[in-house]
Amino acid sequence: AATKKIVVLPGDHIGPEITNSAVEVLKVVEKRRPELKLEFEEHKIGGASIDAFGTPLTDETIKACLEADGVLLGSVGGPEWTDPNCRPEQGLLKLRKSMNVWANLRPCNFASESLVKCSPLREEVAKGVDFCVVRELTGGCYFGDRKEDTGDGKACDTWPYSVEEVTRIARLAAWLAKRSNPPAPVTMLDKANVLASSRLWRKTCTKVFKEEFPELTLNFQLIDSAAMLVVKSPRTLNGVVLTDNLFGDIISDECSCIPGSLGLLPSASLSGVPQETSEKVHCLVEPIHGSAPDIAGKGIVNPIGTILSASLLLRWALNAPAEAQAIDDAVRKVLDDKSIGGRGLYTRDLGGEAMTADITKAVCEELEKLL
Amino acid sequence: AATKKIVVLPGDHIGPEITNSAVEVLKVVEKRRPELKLEFEEHKIGGASIDAFGTPLTDETIKACLEADGVLLGSVGGPEWTDPNCRPEQGLLKLRKSMNVWANLRPCNFASESLVKCSPLREEVAKGVDFCVVRELTGGCYFGDRKEDTGDGKACDTWPYSVEEVTRIARLAAWLAKRSNPPAPVTMLDKANVLASSRLWRKTCTKVFKEEFPELTLNFQLIDSAAMLVVKSPRTLNGVVLTDNLFGDIISDECSCIPGSLGLLPSASLSGVPQETSEKVHCLVEPIHGSAPDIAGKGIVNPIGTILSASLLLRWALNAPAEAQAIDDAVRKVLDDKSIGGRGLYTRDLGGEAMTADITKAVCEELEKLL
Ligand SMILES: CC(C)[C@H](C(=O)O)[C@@H](O)C(=O)O
Ligand SMILES: CC(C)[C@H](C(=O)O)[C@@H](O)C(=O)O
Repeated sequence: AATKKIVVLPGDHIGPEITNSAVEVLKVVEKRRPELKLEFEEHKIGGASIDAFGTPLTDETIKACLEADGVLLGSVGGPEWTDPNCRPEQGLLKLRKSMNVWANLRPCNFASESLVKCSPLREEVAKGVDFCVVRELTGGCYFGDRKEDTGDGKACDTWPYSVEEVTRIARLAAWLAKRSNPPAPVTMLDKANVLASSRLWRKTCTKVFKEEFPELTLNFQLIDSAAMLVVKSPRTLNGVVLTDNLFGDIISDECSCIPGSLGLLPSASLSGVPQETSEKVHCLVEPIHGSAPDIAGKGIVNPIGTILSASLLLRWALNAPAEAQAIDDAVRKVLDDKSIGGRGLYTRDLGGEAMTADITKAVCEELEKLL
Repeated sequence: AATKKIVVLPGDHIGPEITNSAVEVLKVVEKRRPELKLEFEEHKIGGASIDAFGTPLTDETIKACLEADGVLLGSVGGPEWTDPNCRPEQGLLKLRKSMNVWANLRPCNFASESLVKCSPLREEVAKGVDFCVVRELTGGCYFGDRKEDTGDGKACDTWPYSVEEVTRIARLAAWLAKRSNPPAPVTMLDKANVLASSRLWRKTCTKVFKEEFPELTLNFQLIDSAAMLVVKSPRTLNGVVLTDNLFGDIISDECSCIPGSLGLLPSASLSGVPQETSEKVHCLVEPIHGSAPDIAGKGIVNPIGTILSASLLLRWALNAPAEAQAIDDAVRKVLDDKSIGGRGLYTRDLGGEAMTADITKAVCEELEKLL
C-alpha cells in the first residue's frame, strides 16, 4: 500500500496537546489496517513559527502541506504575539489561501445524545440539532483589497465575490446534501437586502440548484434572522447551511456551543469535492476552538474536536469512511461511558474531571475493539 | 406647553396594528400630563408607500420626519414587493440616512423577570441578561459603494469607516455607560484580526475612552467569539455593547429572543447624544421585529416591542423620563399579572392567548394608575 503523508501543524498553546492526541488515535487505525500506511511530518505555524523563523508561515511548511495527503492543525494564536504586522492568524489565513481550501465544513451535531444536557439551550430546543455549515473560505472580505488608516482617518475593506467562487461551493454543498438519505435541505444565508455580493450569491445558487440539482431544496435566510433562529429553533437549519466567509465565521461560532462545548467540534477545509475530480483535493482539518492559553500545558484540554477532525481527514482526504465512522463511534462510546461517577467521561469544559490523556486512551481502546 | 409633533409611520402588514397600540398608550400619557401636548401625523413608508406613490419613501415623508420631535415606525416589508430595484427596506435605510440617525440603541433585558421561563436558553444561562447594543447605523457596508453583477459575473461591496464616524458613536456609548450606577462596562465587537475597518474602530475607541473616559472599562471581543458568548454566557456582555452596522444587525437579532420573544424588544435610533447638544437630535423608534405577514390583521401580534419603543421616544426625544419609566412599569405589571390562568397576560409568541387589544388595554389601565 502507498504510504499517505500527513503533515501535523501543532501551532500554539494547547495545540501540541490536541494534535498529539489525534495522532495517537490515527496510529491505532494504522495498526489495525496494515493497508493504510501513514507517515507523519511535523511543522510549525502561527506564534511557534514566528518565534522560530520570524514569520507565521514559512514557504517550507506551505510546500510540505501542498505535497501532503492531508494536514492536521492544532490551533494558532495567543496574547504574546502583539506585532500587528506579524500575527499568528495570518499564518492560518495564508495557509488556507496557499492550499486553496475554499470550502470549510463544520458539522454541528451531538457527538453523543447524552450531551444534550450540557447545551446552554433548553433540551427541547437543542435536541436533534444536526446540520453542517459549509463556509466559503478563501474569498469575500477576508481576501479583498484593504485600505488601513494611515493617518488620514479612513479605513476600508472590500467584499468581492465572483460567480465562479459561488458556483463551486454551491456544488459542494449540493454534493453534501445528496449524501443524506433522503437528501438534506440546503439553507443559504446572506444579507441580500443590503449587499451586492449577497445578491450575486443568491442568483448564482438559485441557478446552480435549478439547473444541476432540481431534486434538492434550497432555502434562503437573511443572516440576521438566521442568527436569531440558531438560538430560538436551531433545528430549522438542519441539513446543509451554505454561506460566505464572514457569515460562516460568525454563524458557525454561534452554533458551536449548542452541542455541549466548542471543544467537541471538528472542521475540514477542502479545495474541491473529494473523490469526484481527477485533480488532487487538498484537505486541512482542525478543531474549531482556539489556542486557549489559560489552560495550556495542564493536560486538561478536550481533545475530541481534534480527534473528530482526524476522523474527517480519514473520510475526506484518505477515502477511509469505515475507519472514520469507527472513530466517531468510539468517541460516542467514551462520552456515554457511565462507569465513572454515573456520567460520561467528560473533560472540564463539559463539567467533568477527565484529563486529555484519559479521553485519548479511552478512545484508542474503544477504537481497537471496533476495528 | 409647546406641542410636540410625533410622526407615525405604520408601514406594512402588522405595522398599523402595533403603531395604533403605541399611540393609544402615548395618549394616556398626554391625558395625564397636560403640560405634554402631542400631535400625531401619519405617513406611509415601505410597501404601503410603494403601492401609493411608487417609491418606498417620499420626500414629503422625509420632510415631516425631519421636522418632527420624534418618529414612531411600525415595520416594513413583505413578500408581495418583489421588484429588486424598489424594495420596502430601501425606504427604511433611506430614512435612517436622511434623518442622520447614526446610533441605534437596542436594549436586551427582561421586561419582566417572569419571562426568564420563556427564553430558549436555560434559566441559569438567561437570567440577569441586561445589556444595550449600540449599533452604528449609517455607515459601513450598508452605505459603502457597491458593484452589482451586471453580467460580468462579479459583485463587490465596500466597508468604509472614518475616525469621525467611530468617535461620535464611541462617545455615545460612553455617555450611556456613565448613566448606570456604577458605570457599565463597554464591550466593543469587531473582526480586528481580519478587517482594516475593525482596526480603525479599535484604535479610535481605545483613544476616545483613554482620553475622555478614563474611568470607564472598555473590553474587546471578536464578533465570532461574541456570537458564541451570547449563547453560552450572555451575561458576559452585560453593560453596553458597541459595534458596527453589520455586526450590530447580526448580534442584536441573535440576542433578540433571549428575553422571551423578539416581539418584546424596542429600539431607538438617534442623530446625537440626547439633551447634550444645542443641535436638534433626531429620534426614530421602532420594534426590532419584522412585518410578520403571516399574522397580520388577526389582532394577535405582540404590541409590547412598539409600546416600549414609545417609552424610548419619551425618554430620548421628549425628555420625559418619568413617563417613560411609568410605561416600562405598566408593561412589567401586565406581564406579571397572574389573574388570567395563573400566568401573565401573554400573546401567542409567548405561548399565551391574549390579543393585541387585551395587552394594549391592560397597559393603558396600569399606566393610568401609575401617572
Ligand atoms: C483566526 C481567524 C482569522 C479565523 C477566521 O476568522 O477565519 C477563525 O476565527 C476561524 O474561524 O477559523
Ligand atoms: C430591513 C433591514 C435592512 C434592516 C437592517 O439590516 O438594518 C433590519 O434587519 C434591521 O436590523 O433594522
